[in-house]
Amino acid sequence: MSVKWTKNAAGRMVPSELNGEKQVPFKGVGKYKPEARKYAPQISSNADYPADGNKLVKDLKTALKKAGLKDGMTISTHHHLRNGDFLANYIFDVAKESGVKDLRWFPSASFPVHEHLIQYLEDGTIHHIEGSMNGPLGKFVSEGKMKGTGMLRSHGGRFQAIQDGEVKIDIAVISAPTADSFGNANGLDGPSACGLLGFALADSQYADRVIVVTDNLVEFPCIPWQIQGNYVDYTVKIDKLGDPDKIISGTTQITKSPDRLLLAELTAKFCDYAGIIKDGFSFQSGAGGTSLAVGEYFRQIMKEKGIKARFARGGSNKYLVSMLEEGLVDYILDGQTFDLDGVRSMAENPGHVWTSPFTSYNYHGKGNFAGMVDVVVLGATEVDLNFNANVVTHSDGYLLHGIGGWQNCLFSKTVILPIPLFRDRIPVIKENVTTLCGPGELIDVIVTERGIAVNPLRKDLIEKVKGSGLPIKSIEELYEEAIIICGKPQEPVLREKVIAGIKWVDGTLIDVVREVGSE
Amino acid sequence: MSVKWTKNAAGRMVPSELNGEKQVPFKGVGKYKPEARKYAPQISSNADYPADGNKLVKDLKTALKKAGLKDGMTISTHHHLRNGDFLANYIFDVAKESGVKDLRWFPSASFPVHEHLIQYLEDGTIHHIEGSMNGPLGKFVSEGKMKGTGMLRSHGGRFQAIQDGEVKIDIAVISAPTADSFGNANGLDGPSACGLLGFALADSQYADRVIVVTDNLVEFPCIPWQIQGNYVDYTVKIDKLGDPDKIISGTTQITKSPDRLLLAELTAKFCDYAGIIKDGFSFQSGAGGTSLAVGEYFRQIMKEKGIKARFARGGSNKYLVSMLEEGLVDYILDGQTFDLDGVRSMAENPGHVWTSPFTSYNYHGKGNFAGMVDVVVLGATEVDLNFNANVVTHSDGYLLHGIGGWQNCLFSKTVILPIPLFRDRIPVIKENVTTLCGPGELIDVIVTERGIAVNPLRKDLIEKVKGSGLPIKSIEELYEEAIIICGKPQEPVLREKVIAGIKWVDGTLIDVVREVGSE
Repeated sequence: MSVKWTKNAAGRMVPSELNGEKQVPFKGVGKYKPEARKYAPQISSNADYPADGNKLVKDLKTALKKAGLKDGMTISTHHHLRNGDFLANYIFDVAKESGVKDLRWFPSASFPVHEHLIQYLEDGTIHHIEGSMNGPLGKFVSEGKMKGTGMLRSHGGRFQAIQDGEVKIDIAVISAPTADSFGNANGLDGPSACGLLGFALADSQYADRVIVVTDNLVEFPCIPWQIQGNYVDYTVKIDKLGDPDKIISGTTQITKSPDRLLLAELTAKFCDYAGIIKDGFSFQSGAGGTSLAVGEYFRQIMKEKGIKARFARGGSNKYLVSMLEEGLVDYILDGQTFDLDGVRSMAENPGHVWTSPFTSYNYHGKGNFAGMVDVVVLGATEVDLNFNANVVTHSDGYLLHGIGGWQNCLFSKTVILPIPLFRDRIPVIKENVTTLCGPGELIDVIVTERGIAVNPLRKDLIEKVKGSGLPIKSIEELYEEAIIICGKPQEPVLREKVIAGIKWVDGTLIDVVREVGSE
Repeated sequence: MSVKWTKNAAGRMVPSELNGEKQVPFKGVGKYKPEARKYAPQISSNADYPADGNKLVKDLKTALKKAGLKDGMTISTHHHLRNGDFLANYIFDVAKESGVKDLRWFPSASFPVHEHLIQYLEDGTIHHIEGSMNGPLGKFVSEGKMKGTGMLRSHGGRFQAIQDGEVKIDIAVISAPTADSFGNANGLDGPSACGLLGFALADSQYADRVIVVTDNLVEFPCIPWQIQGNYVDYTVKIDKLGDPDKIISGTTQITKSPDRLLLAELTAKFCDYAGIIKDGFSFQSGAGGTSLAVGEYFRQIMKEKGIKARFARGGSNKYLVSMLEEGLVDYILDGQTFDLDGVRSMAENPGHVWTSPFTSYNYHGKGNFAGMVDVVVLGATEVDLNFNANVVTHSDGYLLHGIGGWQNCLFSKTVILPIPLFRDRIPVIKENVTTLCGPGELIDVIVTERGIAVNPLRKDLIEKVKGSGLPIKSIEELYEEAIIICGKPQEPVLREKVIAGIKWVDGTLIDVVREVGSE
């Protein structure tokens, strides 16, 4: 079958297949509704599991062998241990040792620590990665060195892909900071505590075989169970899942850069004038320095007004936790914890609730939480004149970031991107983004240090901030200013070869990323 | 297709179909392993749900209409509101009003309050009930008056049947003591608080359409969410879900009958001599007067020994809660709460954990909790010389009880049935049970006021209680004693017509129940 290229609803050329799998081109937001059923895992029988519930096997190798590890399989992992994760590397060490080839690694995200796996991408142990490829792996892939084609999905899109059977996981290996021998597990306790395990939820429910690996084995029952042992085939005790210092930051820090503080202040002021910050409102802001600063401005405004938020969506951190503890927010609905205070609060405080990509982000459910958030503050590497945005590649074409929950968050009632007008003298607002990750119709406001552009679709917002004194400009004006200062940037030199696909939240293909040419 | 009858592995004659659906005869414990996949619900799209998450519709009738209510559909409900439930009756009032016919009602259990539905069984609104038919409904069905054939399943078997696609639910209506407009729900709060909603879990996950009905609507997010709104299609606010006095008993009471206290004492002593009551052990006992008394004897023994239990499985009640609060058990793993203290404790105490039929009882999972329980104390209406037991019919043939979690609990390490040797001068130990619900190989000990019979398969237990001074007898000896006192009882007069099937935990047919003949 020859690959055909078509222009999708976002005007991007996309191929009819990637890695030999058929692709549906992006049809427009909310336009693609598959007439199909969810993936149906095999029915299990208790008769095939230990009567006393003890599923411990000797080691990871034994578990992988019992799970039937063989050539061409899909192995999934989660990224709650972030750059402190040891387990994903162990898994492929075992695979290499066992002579298994052509695996598909399906992490919820990868980190610089996984640079270790480049050797296995080179020697054919791993065929390709589906998941974000940050840092060194991204560079490797961008240079066309991976056998197969990468595939990037949002957190919600990953859940959707598993649920819908787009990605069939043969073996899920779940890093569990606390677990019992039955396989009940949580991330709240133990030397490798990471908070929650939501990114592994779909894997546990839909994978053919599920292995829970822990360095903190407790007697049944492990309470609470964020992962349910009833989905688990084997449990393994190892010495060390990861490096605690890199699993969670001891501290998250608000930016001290005056430029970024200005972005944050403008963002908060915009929200205030637009009437978004009112009693019972809800917000989500990330763990980056600027986002944290926006949260702090929100705190000040809420205190001044004497109001509180109904909920904040995390990534949680000490700042958000202190707002919960001060009673400024009723609930944190948390998808991952970024620091020690986040982990502590989640373990202690019933108002600090763990969520999953299913509850928060899955687009193929009966609604999700993302749409209920009043305002979300996100980043971007590039934005174009139609408010389309990019979060995965830099303007030089290198694929260096994952999508995370970014695409999913675009369904919030108001989406604001505070971004510098240029980085290293390269304008961030472009005629066309290098890679399209989010359609402009979902992006409402661009806040730069030289002005704020509101999407013309949001007449209501434009009306509300009239007379506010905020530096409202058109996106074209901002673009022109950047060009005047930096000059028109050179387009990156890209080759024909597609090195990764970018999925939209409904499983359609919104764009592809190409190999970076040599200078 | 003509119905064929075969003798199943328990020696019972069973038909090849019931209600026009193919039946698999019971093959023996752990012998039937379907080579099939779980039921796969349709993929949904957020695009079809309100962007702001508010799924409220005007009333129950509107919700049922939007859900597509029509002839022949399967409507499911849960029984956490027990005899205080109003909702199931409302649903069929609406169905009657709408002229809909031949519905299958699929409750997790029915109660005397549902006598209201007999009119709809008579006029063809409801074709038949699959679920326990206690009291008046049981009598009605036993007399051959229901159009279709009843089907009884254990709590775990009901989950299995939904998960495996044996029962396809068209519309699940979930009674939710607290809920938000998105459909997140719990049973912990509000005027109709019932504790948890585990019996509705499978319904929420697998039904085509899910309606959450509440009389305590809270602002999003309803925390905790025992039912996830991401599975819910419509939400409805009504005035009153039920009668609080009948939803949970204000008080549960230990038996004061000297006979039953003797049974309880003998049971506890047996466990003590058999070495079951040791530090870190686990137990489950029901909410009946005798079971409660067993729990109290356990408490005394634990205090004397200075030990504690790792967990107790509930039905919870004030006695179990006080053991948790005194530190005599680390955790209550609770499937339903029977009194106000149970509800309070579950809402307050992180050691009082809500479970579901999935975690606790589903036999078609990768293990469940039932097998991890050291000792379970259960009831029975009859036991036979092979330790087979009956919990659904009386010796007169009337089907008056459901199976509940009884079959599932038989997988505990030791199963003890404390039962009187006769009731109303009818021996409880019989040559053959009227209806077979649990195979004798899983039932270890029968405790009667006139002696204790240990299943010969449990040589280990027999060895352990030697020299204990406990009145150990063979089951035949107990049977003979009963006959001498009561005389051989008359067999019930039963007709040909099958009025209900009894499923085993794996979905196979273990027995059928026949119409009771007139005297």
